[in-house]
Amino acid sequence: MKYCSLCGGTVDFRIPDKDNRERFVCNNCDAIHYQNPNNVCGAILTRGDQVLLCRRAIEPRYGFWTLPAGFMENGETVEQAARREAIEEANAEAAGLQLFGVFSMPYISQVYLMFCGELIGDFSPGDESLEVGLFRQDEIPWSELAFPVVGCSLELYFKHGTSQVHHAWFSRDQQRNHSIHFGD
Amino acid sequence: MKYCSLCGGTVDFRIPDKDNRERFVCNNCDAIHYQNPNNVCGAILTRGDQVLLCRRAIEPRYGFWTLPAGFMENGETVEQAARREAIEEANAEAAGLQLFGVFSMPYISQVYLMFCGELIGDFSPGDESLEVGLFRQDEIPWSELAFPVVGCSLELYFKHGTSQVHHAWFSRDQQRNHSIHFGD
Repeated sequence: MKYCSLCGGTVDFRIPDKDNRERFVCNNCDAIHYQNPNNVCGAILTRGDQVLLCRRAIEPRYGFWTLPAGFMENGETVEQAARREAIEEANAEAAGLQLFGVFSMPYISQVYLMFCGELIGDFSPGDESLEVGLFRQDEIPWSELAFPVVGCSLELYFKHGTSQVHHAWFSRDQQRNHSIHFGD
Repeated sequence: MKYCSLCGGTVDFRIPDKDNRERFVCNNCDAIHYQNPNNVCGAILTRGDQVLLCRRAIEPRYGFWTLPAGFMENGETVEQAARREAIEEANAEAAGLQLFGVFSMPYISQVYLMFCGELIGDFSPGDESLEVGLFRQDEIPWSELAFPVVGCSLELYFKHGTSQVHHAWFSRDQQRNHSIHFGD
């Protein structure tokens, strides 16, 4: 950020009065421009013992498999966002969605809010998917999953079903290896 | 938003290529400036049958009682944000924090992520609190609570304890009356 989005003045990155962390502050109108984490909402959609996966037609991770998920938009609930993403990426509708897990990724300032529910009717690739398909546990392309949270969500689902709401966070080391942590 | 924060050019509010909703788009450098919901993280901190509440020393709702909670910052987990807010608002530390509820407020594009845990040691008002105190269920100042999510969280806690993770969303009508919804 270089310019104030309200007045076009230049901004400094400094600690405002009565605050304790650096923010972008306008040198002209004094507006403070906060930057905060984004939510990614998605769903594990199941049919019997199968789970719906999408092969990404967009970067990052073009060609890798993922659960339908994407950035939450203003004006919607977390569940509406998860439903919208399933429709956009896989033309897939869900019944009985329940909150499945909340996963923080502080290294990229994202929070994943995942749901689980039953896939209803047909499905087909949306604009952001090369293909979509149903996979049993032993058919999941584990080595071709797009993001660590996808693999962890699937592992938690196949281990625990929907018996609990998971809460965890991920860390990433300098070699970009990810670890999942339950609790502090 | 009137100016591009990257180049200082003017912005239009229009639907970008390959998108389906209006965004602020720079007329000069074509940057798309997404605006997304914010997370508010907080905690129900308990000691025996008492719950910690803070009386707000800031607007909105100056003078009303609330659970310690505030905007999640970049680079932290939802749980770290809840802990930080308890320290900032009440100098209060928690043990055994567990996810308690996820509450969407689409009319203000916020998501509350509430935890529940045991209050450890002393507490005292932080800069944003006029006073802090412990309240039994029949001592809660129900008519002087700052926000609907505070009252609903307390009701859910006194009814269910920590036996489940709640997921709900709030609506607000034109008279600013709020309703809580579980499920769609």
